[in-house]
Amino acid sequence: MESASVEELCIRARRAGQVMQTASGKMKDAALKGVRDALERQRSVIEEANRRDKEYANSKDLSMTLVKRLDLEGPKFDQMLENVESVMRLPDPVGTVMMARKLLDGLDLYRVTCPIGVINVIFEARPEAAVQIASLCIKSGNALLLKGGKEASNSNAALVECIRDGIESAGLPRDTVSLISSRDQIAEVLKMDRYVDLVIPRGSNELVRYITDNTRIPVLGHADGICAVYVDKDADVDKAAKIVVDSKSQYVSVCNAAETLLVNRSVMEKQLPVIGKALAEAGVTMRADAETLPFLPADKTKSANDEDYDSEFLDYIIAVKAVDSVDEAIAHINAHGSHHTDCIVTENKQTAEKFLAGVDSANVYHNASTRFADGFRYGFGAEVGVSTCRTHSRGPVGVEGLLIYKYRLYGNGHTVGAMVKDGIPFLHKDIDPALPQP
Amino acid sequence: MESASVEELCIRARRAGQVMQTASGKMKDAALKGVRDALERQRSVIEEANRRDKEYANSKDLSMTLVKRLDLEGPKFDQMLENVESVMRLPDPVGTVMMARKLLDGLDLYRVTCPIGVINVIFEARPEAAVQIASLCIKSGNALLLKGGKEASNSNAALVECIRDGIESAGLPRDTVSLISSRDQIAEVLKMDRYVDLVIPRGSNELVRYITDNTRIPVLGHADGICAVYVDKDADVDKAAKIVVDSKSQYVSVCNAAETLLVNRSVMEKQLPVIGKALAEAGVTMRADAETLPFLPADKTKSANDEDYDSEFLDYIIAVKAVDSVDEAIAHINAHGSHHTDCIVTENKQTAEKFLAGVDSANVYHNASTRFADGFRYGFGAEVGVSTCRTHSRGPVGVEGLLIYKYRLYGNGHTVGAMVKDGIPFLHKDIDPALPQP
Repeated sequence: MESASVEELCIRARRAGQVMQTASGKMKDAALKGVRDALERQRSVIEEANRRDKEYANSKDLSMTLVKRLDLEGPKFDQMLENVESVMRLPDPVGTVMMARKLLDGLDLYRVTCPIGVINVIFEARPEAAVQIASLCIKSGNALLLKGGKEASNSNAALVECIRDGIESAGLPRDTVSLISSRDQIAEVLKMDRYVDLVIPRGSNELVRYITDNTRIPVLGHADGICAVYVDKDADVDKAAKIVVDSKSQYVSVCNAAETLLVNRSVMEKQLPVIGKALAEAGVTMRADAETLPFLPADKTKSANDEDYDSEFLDYIIAVKAVDSVDEAIAHINAHGSHHTDCIVTENKQTAEKFLAGVDSANVYHNASTRFADGFRYGFGAEVGVSTCRTHSRGPVGVEGLLIYKYRLYGNGHTVGAMVKDGIPFLHKDIDPALPQP
Repeated sequence: MESASVEELCIRARRAGQVMQTASGKMKDAALKGVRDALERQRSVIEEANRRDKEYANSKDLSMTLVKRLDLEGPKFDQMLENVESVMRLPDPVGTVMMARKLLDGLDLYRVTCPIGVINVIFEARPEAAVQIASLCIKSGNALLLKGGKEASNSNAALVECIRDGIESAGLPRDTVSLISSRDQIAEVLKMDRYVDLVIPRGSNELVRYITDNTRIPVLGHADGICAVYVDKDADVDKAAKIVVDSKSQYVSVCNAAETLLVNRSVMEKQLPVIGKALAEAGVTMRADAETLPFLPADKTKSANDEDYDSEFLDYIIAVKAVDSVDEAIAHINAHGSHHTDCIVTENKQTAEKFLAGVDSANVYHNASTRFADGFRYGFGAEVGVSTCRTHSRGPVGVEGLLIYKYRLYGNGHTVGAMVKDGIPFLHKDIDPALPQP
């Protein structure tokens, strides 16, 4: 497709977004129902497309993990339908009054949620992510340009056709969701700051960096997850072992898995043998500093080097380090972590409070596994991704992350000139957060 | 200053920000009180610096408008002190619970507001903006790198010294606020995405574009204000004339001044002579399309060309155009406006509702002058700027625009593995939005 066509795609998305922003909650839910039904109706077509992708991946001898991530059949298909329904069941997020204030007699200001406009999401292998992301965009009244992984191109094309059919069946524009197929096209989309309002890259650090370096469109990126668990001097040893093992090894190849274990020097002699044994049993090897090394299983531990504390292993490996205090733990995490998810294990609530306030991360936990950092687990119905940005939306991004707001002001001929001339003071009084009914 | 020094400045700002993010509301207010008192104490020093800037501007024969904007003496100085106090009086915006949810028995999630981190604000002539922006950053617990206009360099330096003294007097870090002096240094700051979290350029479109093209740091920009007033078929003629005149001419050189007047074809014969006369009396000249031209004062009106409907005049000029319906008005504004502030004048509430929902702008008004779009008038205590972005913060940006949030999760040894193994379903139940007390 030529570059002019990408622009045309973006213009169509902008127009569709302008229709979607005034669509009622009922219409958007009807579109989601349409999507769900179209997916069910076309199940065999989608599964056939998915088989072609898997055969291609097998023929190219791609990794089993990748082939597994591609798979859409059986229970994964049912789960996908269920996910659309769970987004449908969420309340309409558009039109919520966030602030209501009387400025002057008869002049009332409301801050009201509304869609952002046109979103470009770039995602990797898992094709069901297309359905999740599209569902969240429909619910929030945004138009979507989707770019999936090459390995899933047949699956994605079949899914997006169903999504478009479903939206159209509810009388809303097909162009609310479009698929972009090639990497060249993404380079074109990144120039379309006139028509595209937000880019969400879900993938490697390199992808996120490439995007931010090549666009003036705002980017909601997702960088490394270098997550830490700090075992405090007042930690319960059994909880510490359970939380460290789960954070590290429940699923190692994800961004909310722990990569670093910090332990308070005063309790390492007591805590580390228990934690180290549990980690070893879970198949984890340790990279320890000179102080902690003697207390960890010798056959599963080697000396750490400096880079280990800045590494996202995504593997059965954890870096271990002694610290003197919660303050040193906070300082280490703020300097070496990726501001994703960090946990303190302690029975001391004052210490926990200090950690939760001082650690500058999207998710800060007291006595819970870092693996809970996820949109589904947080109850968002679905997830666009996990943001490590510090503006707009942080942490797991659900439907709210796809919204912005506008200010509605209702007057009766009010002018600034009259107010200044007559010296009328502003009231700035909170009022009932219900918009005037037409 | 060399490039290493800019990096050092940014690192110091990051460290100061990490202290500020845990500072109590009381401490931050003490810092604001310190700032206010330091400004008052050093009034003669600041006024002397300000006179040097004004003398330089006069000697260079810069415009009177600019010299006036530079002025800090007399009532402007008092107003500046009063503005610090009004920010001080706002409630502490940090630590507000936005969401509270029980995930599992004993596992509670809270979304809590927190500072963004380090903000870089680039602003033009008016030196009192330095004090306003610094006040909002202190209140919200952010560190600030300020870059002011060259013409105000003496004033800005004197002000920032007082601000730093004031912050230090409350036991908080001086480096919470720093001044950057040269344009070269800004180019260096834009590379510091590791230490700087948000850039806010307040100035021309060219400045905003230069910034977005040269950084991977998120940008909260402020582009043109091409604002429109639409006079509907059900408009009251007196309100229409008042609102159009105020929107256009109450202060022409600002972004919330109207540049376009749209009028419903069916009432232009009745409305335009009245509105046109009022505009002419206010010194406004009109650029009209062929349909509206005959109804406007001949000596104050000329034919419009296409570009007039895409122009930010910032002058006593307004483009006038007939439209067939509210739908055509919405379409025109969404295509030609700058998504800043737009108004409908009508007595028909259904039509107003359609306009407010369909116009995709930061501020949408019913029967009120576009000139109300301003942080002070909205009751934000002060204003960092007016954002025409569609992410993070839109419209007038007060203290809330300098915040993000983090998720705090409180558990008691909870792991994902145990939950999966025992098939424990999530509760996702709303709970009391009060954080557990340590």
